[in-house]
Amino acid sequence: MTTDSKNRPIGVFDSGIGGLTVYKALREALPQEDFIYLGDTARLPYGTKSHETVAAYALQAAQLLLEHDIKLLVVACNTASAQALPELRRAFPDLPCLGVIEPGADAAVAASHSGRIAVLATEGTARSGAYVEAIQRRSSAVEVQVLACNLLVALVEEGWCDGAEAEVILRRYLHRLEEGFDTLVLGCTHFPILAPMLRKIVSPSISIIDSAVTAAQAVREYLQSFGQLAPSSQVGSCHFLVTDGPERFERVARLFLNEDIAGKITQVYLRQR
Amino acid sequence: MTTDSKNRPIGVFDSGIGGLTVYKALREALPQEDFIYLGDTARLPYGTKSHETVAAYALQAAQLLLEHDIKLLVVACNTASAQALPELRRAFPDLPCLGVIEPGADAAVAASHSGRIAVLATEGTARSGAYVEAIQRRSSAVEVQVLACNLLVALVEEGWCDGAEAEVILRRYLHRLEEGFDTLVLGCTHFPILAPMLRKIVSPSISIIDSAVTAAQAVREYLQSFGQLAPSSQVGSCHFLVTDGPERFERVARLFLNEDIAGKITQVYLRQR
Repeated sequence: MTTDSKNRPIGVFDSGIGGLTVYKALREALPQEDFIYLGDTARLPYGTKSHETVAAYALQAAQLLLEHDIKLLVVACNTASAQALPELRRAFPDLPCLGVIEPGADAAVAASHSGRIAVLATEGTARSGAYVEAIQRRSSAVEVQVLACNLLVALVEEGWCDGAEAEVILRRYLHRLEEGFDTLVLGCTHFPILAPMLRKIVSPSISIIDSAVTAAQAVREYLQSFGQLAPSSQVGSCHFLVTDGPERFERVARLFLNEDIAGKITQVYLRQR
Repeated sequence: MTTDSKNRPIGVFDSGIGGLTVYKALREALPQEDFIYLGDTARLPYGTKSHETVAAYALQAAQLLLEHDIKLLVVACNTASAQALPELRRAFPDLPCLGVIEPGADAAVAASHSGRIAVLATEGTARSGAYVEAIQRRSSAVEVQVLACNLLVALVEEGWCDGAEAEVILRRYLHRLEEGFDTLVLGCTHFPILAPMLRKIVSPSISIIDSAVTAAQAVREYLQSFGQLAPSSQVGSCHFLVTDGPERFERVARLFLNEDIAGKITQVYLRQR
């Protein structure tokens, strides 16, 4: 492989904004890499949409990122990871595609002593059964419960993550879980923003798994094992592509990144069918 | 005009599900009419998206409904009414297009004695300034405040409309309004579902305006004045078109209509650009 191929950017695809938690973890793990982040803000959220629609959207997104000559595609969205990875790998056999569910499952199985794991997710991720399948493939005796928590995405995007609203909503969702789990997986990229409030509510003995961090480690290991890391002397960059106007993305991104990304955002168009 | 033209269906367009409150009011006001309801469920919600994107989506939806030979288009979505009506009227000059904002403004101005009106809306509707403009065109001295309440759509779709979560969230939003208003407009089609909880929270002296009911009256008056009402001896029907899979639409529609619409839903595709 040539140096050239190492210097190609990493593509990060998300339904919109939440994947910025994954991008942030990637940038910390891989500061030398260039990134192109594509957020499908004109059609977000994916969490309440059907398998067929999410898979079609993901294929369009991957096609566009391939035109930017990416060396690897990170599917940062849990819903798209759950619903579209097989389709992506079939459609683009030469493009390495990594999702966030397998790394999250790895970390959850490693953390759990009781063999009982709970996952908070979107409706689409829960319906797909992807977390149950990924966790039980690693350890068939583990009991997994996956809870759809559709309100949490809007809650995080409103910025209401540490007040009475977040607490009453999280308590109502958590009340639906059967007790006895010792590991709680944040199975949607928005949910790490709620981790401090969750930490206050659940028992201190429960491990909270943020799949953004574990996914970034998996990407690093993958690139390393194939000799595809960019030279560590470099300082990477990121450009953001969004399908809706950039104003709201820029504003909400501040909640996720604590930085101003104005001037780094370009609007693009994805075609439905 | 021929009898034929009277018997054509009324098209109802919404970003997805919330417009069913408008459809329900229309069916009650006009039981003899046939309806075709188009919900853009693959791209909902519109409330957080840009003017340009919402206008493009609305034009595609109107084009598809025109292929069903509609006699009138009701834009049931407040955000699309606020952002896309001028574009729709320019693109389809022969198609009567009625939105939900003008009727809501009529009812609000008629209800207010203090001349101070508050509107709860989506981010897109608030940003558009459409309610302020429509209300002040009717009565320039009226003070209007419009509050973006993005969480409420997800709250209603989760079915959490009468518990502690709805109360704490509504109280936080209402706290942002300046006091002194005597009329509260529900400027998003999802919000009428929250009217009972709002009624418990706000002073009994405040009038709550549901623009679904006023929009249905406006449609009835329009058809009557142009001699376009279907014969009252008929019993109308409705067919539902959705851009995502029908399962979730069918489920959430039960919250809005209290009836089962399975078997009346067809998936269709709208093209972006």
